Amino acid sequence: MEAPHDEFMREAIRLSIEKMQAGHGGPFGAVVVKDGEIIARGFNQVTSTHDPTCHAEVDAIRKACATLGTFQLTDCDLYTSCEPCPMCLGAIYWARPRRVFYGNTKQDAAAVGFDDHFIYDEIEKPLGERTIPMQELLREEARAGFRAWEEHESRKEY
Amino acid sequence: MEAPHDEFMREAIRLSIEKMQAGHGGPFGAVVVKDGEIIARGFNQVTSTHDPTCHAEVDAIRKACATLGTFQLTDCDLYTSCEPCPMCLGAIYWARPRRVFYGNTKQDAAAVGFDDHFIYDEIEKPLGERTIPMQELLREEARAGFRAWEEHESRKEY
Repeated sequence: MEAPHDEFMREAIRLSIEKMQAGHGGPFGAVVVKDGEIIARGFNQVTSTHDPTCHAEVDAIRKACATLGTFQLTDCDLYTSCEPCPMCLGAIYWARPRRVFYGNTKQDAAAVGFDDHFIYDEIEKPLGERTIPMQELLREEARAGFRAWEEHESRKEY
Repeated sequence: MEAPHDEFMREAIRLSIEKMQAGHGGPFGAVVVKDGEIIARGFNQVTSTHDPTCHAEVDAIRKACATLGTFQLTDCDLYTSCEPCPMCLGAIYWARPRRVFYGNTKQDAAAVGFDDHFIYDEIEKPLGERTIPMQELLREEARAGFRAWEEHESRKEY
């Protein structure tokens, strides 16, 4: 008997091929599973929707959260056709699923021209050494926002 | 005369306070500037829209790209009320703006209860040591998606 894990990953892989060939974007698919059922299917739509954040994992996470009516993927598993890029890995940590399964590695992604590995390298660099310059500005004024948050009685933490 | 930089950052800070107090989400705002004009305003909407990826920077990047009709923020600057979390930093690298200015630091964010610093630490860990388990599965089958991409004649690279 085939493990359900394989079945869910094969659906992510199927999406990675079918949606790419249909012109939606790069070759990436993902599904979110809860209680043994697929609750969301995501696929890359960067070029077709002009949204650089619409990677398969982000798309699947957003759809799964919309379905569940929550911003957390508690007790959910994510199956993605490729090891998440730093953006998607960050999205995963914010959504907090139980486990992640991936097919291709980030080295496989780099080998066909995707920047994942480059971005991982950049994140570990000090701000001043990064390719995109990043500069602190008006930190004292900006902290007013955080003070207002701490004083906001009806704040919903996440 | 006040530098325009300050003016743009103050708008990001204003959004971080006003939109949080209106109940949209956490205390974070961002603007995208092109040719000296604000072309998009973003703010955190995680809790109000049930979208864990709707951070101020992601929101601003998505809106700016929709306005420009492209998935790249060439010659644009991003002003954000807080140093980007790993998800937003990844989104920035995919959108490729010219520069980023930030107000609060990631340490400031951690001090008021946001996980940014935790996620930065996790990203640098080997897969097996991360809090959310990540496991490779069916890599050989997944590579079919990348082969299909390389063979896809009308592919649009990004």
